[in-house]
Amino acid sequence: MAGARLSVSVSRLFRRLEPLFSSRHYCSLASPCAVSYSQYGEPSKVLRFLTDVDVPDVRDDQVSVRMLAAPINPADINMIQGVYPIKPPLPAVGGNEGVGEVVSVGLQVSDLQPGDWVIPADSGWGTWRTHAVCPASELRKIPNDIPLEAAATLAVNPCTAYRMLSDFQHLQPGDTIVQNGANSGVGQAVIQIAAARGLVTINVVRNRPDRSSYFELEMYLKGLGGHYVITEEGLRRQDFRDIFKRLPRPKLALNCVGGKSATEILRHLETGGTMVTYGGMSRQPVTVPTGSLIFQDIKVVGYWMTQWNKRQTDSQESSEMLSTLCDYVRQGKLQAPSNVQVPISDYMAAINSTRDAFSTKKQILTMSS
Amino acid sequence: MAGARLSVSVSRLFRRLEPLFSSRHYCSLASPCAVSYSQYGEPSKVLRFLTDVDVPDVRDDQVSVRMLAAPINPADINMIQGVYPIKPPLPAVGGNEGVGEVVSVGLQVSDLQPGDWVIPADSGWGTWRTHAVCPASELRKIPNDIPLEAAATLAVNPCTAYRMLSDFQHLQPGDTIVQNGANSGVGQAVIQIAAARGLVTINVVRNRPDRSSYFELEMYLKGLGGHYVITEEGLRRQDFRDIFKRLPRPKLALNCVGGKSATEILRHLETGGTMVTYGGMSRQPVTVPTGSLIFQDIKVVGYWMTQWNKRQTDSQESSEMLSTLCDYVRQGKLQAPSNVQVPISDYMAAINSTRDAFSTKKQILTMSS
Repeated sequence: MAGARLSVSVSRLFRRLEPLFSSRHYCSLASPCAVSYSQYGEPSKVLRFLTDVDVPDVRDDQVSVRMLAAPINPADINMIQGVYPIKPPLPAVGGNEGVGEVVSVGLQVSDLQPGDWVIPADSGWGTWRTHAVCPASELRKIPNDIPLEAAATLAVNPCTAYRMLSDFQHLQPGDTIVQNGANSGVGQAVIQIAAARGLVTINVVRNRPDRSSYFELEMYLKGLGGHYVITEEGLRRQDFRDIFKRLPRPKLALNCVGGKSATEILRHLETGGTMVTYGGMSRQPVTVPTGSLIFQDIKVVGYWMTQWNKRQTDSQESSEMLSTLCDYVRQGKLQAPSNVQVPISDYMAAINSTRDAFSTKKQILTMSS
Repeated sequence: MAGARLSVSVSRLFRRLEPLFSSRHYCSLASPCAVSYSQYGEPSKVLRFLTDVDVPDVRDDQVSVRMLAAPINPADINMIQGVYPIKPPLPAVGGNEGVGEVVSVGLQVSDLQPGDWVIPADSGWGTWRTHAVCPASELRKIPNDIPLEAAATLAVNPCTAYRMLSDFQHLQPGDTIVQNGANSGVGQAVIQIAAARGLVTINVVRNRPDRSSYFELEMYLKGLGGHYVITEEGLRRQDFRDIFKRLPRPKLALNCVGGKSATEILRHLETGGTMVTYGGMSRQPVTVPTGSLIFQDIKVVGYWMTQWNKRQTDSQESSEMLSTLCDYVRQGKLQAPSNVQVPISDYMAAINSTRDAFSTKKQILTMSS
């Protein structure tokens, strides 16, 4: 009985997924496969690994892409759960970030050619697949002379870090910034981009169960270019406050935790400073003392890369950003987050690892067979 | 014994207050008096009513002013308590806002003449006195053809309301704003200035112990030009949410309460909207859902009139503001808050009335004998 029901379900699933493979989301070439879902819910329940789907022809304005690598980000999981503000039409392919190689282009496509590396221009494109055919306008070209894992993880975390360091305060070499969740993907990019610009970073992390794993983390973040690494409890200690006898107070605080952690980093800001929230790992809201707003003129704002991408009316600012970031990568100033590469067929193990609270390695799905 | 000790204390007090009357803070002309303090603390304990002080000559760059009227604002009380971010050097005269008439001017003073009305350019000047001699640069001229109580209460509340409606969002006629503490001095000014500009106001007030006093308040605020008056509980009701079927969501929220009240008004903002905090009557911090910052792009900032005044490098923006506000007053679009005029000698009763939680009338000290 159970087997029969399963067989019917799979058959229904394929019928429901059919539109996915006959439009822009077609997986093409030999053994195309994709991690897909046709309803929102827990990844273990709703994700399916689809294989051997037919390939459509590339229309004049389209590009055929062979995906190379795609990371698993927390937002990807929220999107599958249906709790993210963007809900792609179902059925959908999982993943928002990743790099692919152009295989062929339609007659009207002039700015891309076979061999180019591309990343999706927007969220919800679906990167956890081996092949895709889509309009060229949905892709952005990036250099193909940087490491694969750096290319695959360029569009979300380094771009978020870059924009938050550029768009909210006029920062100059020697200026200080403070961030919590400093070990997050964005946090690691912040440390490196800030260091490349001569900014001093104060990096707040959760304490670790044992001293050696905390020490390892501290050394890792300092190795990336972080100047100070401190626990949240440490923020309240006098010896920490003493560092502002020799350092200017931060103009910018970056928050991906919320709750007490956000309030603590905000308290250290210089008058007129800004706290930018880009995540809420503690699931607690951001609490701001009234006096900080009125008398210290602290600004509390948010940042969402997806929204920035949507607001781009021309791509120049985006091109400048990608070009600068790739330069940092080539110069060794920006490296991909510490990562594990996992074949796409093992996606479920990679998702489970991503959800581990103390996970320090980014899971990257690889599509080479 | 008690009498002797008191006599010694008063004598000491006068010696400590001497600098106050021999520099810019001199009270001059017949029967000059002032409400003064020589240490921070509870007003009932530290304030003294000083009378009959000698008058200094007016130096070349100075102006002699006869004060006409000065309100009691909550910040004045915090300043006396020593809990306000500005601590005037002691001994000091109470009061930050008020209007005076120029009596005589020094030889170098060209932009003021006897008969002009003036208000202090900055906080901490000390308005609760009958006479003052100070540099002309510490005063701003205002028209003397508006009602006295409007002139006396122009510098803080209407200016705060004007700037908050001008500096944070580009508002156009038909746009909506929401504010809590709508019955505060600033709140009443917001209603009137917004109405003069064609903006729709949603005014949140605390519920009242009985229906008739709530109804009276509602009618009063609507009489000022408020479009909607609603209790904080009402903000969460569906019938309130339904008004956004016919109104655009607010671009701007003005908060002088904090706590849940601030969070509630913030939830109704349009994507990209701003909440400006200028007070914290509930003594609770401002709590902001993470999603509002990231996905709705809500900005949470503060406003402090004192800081704005300090940042003014030229006075043009300030002159424009005062001129517009006085035009509104003359046109009947902006009236002084509902008030009670109290002789300066009864300052303590006026301070006590100001601290009454449900007080709806502004206490204005008058200096005419």
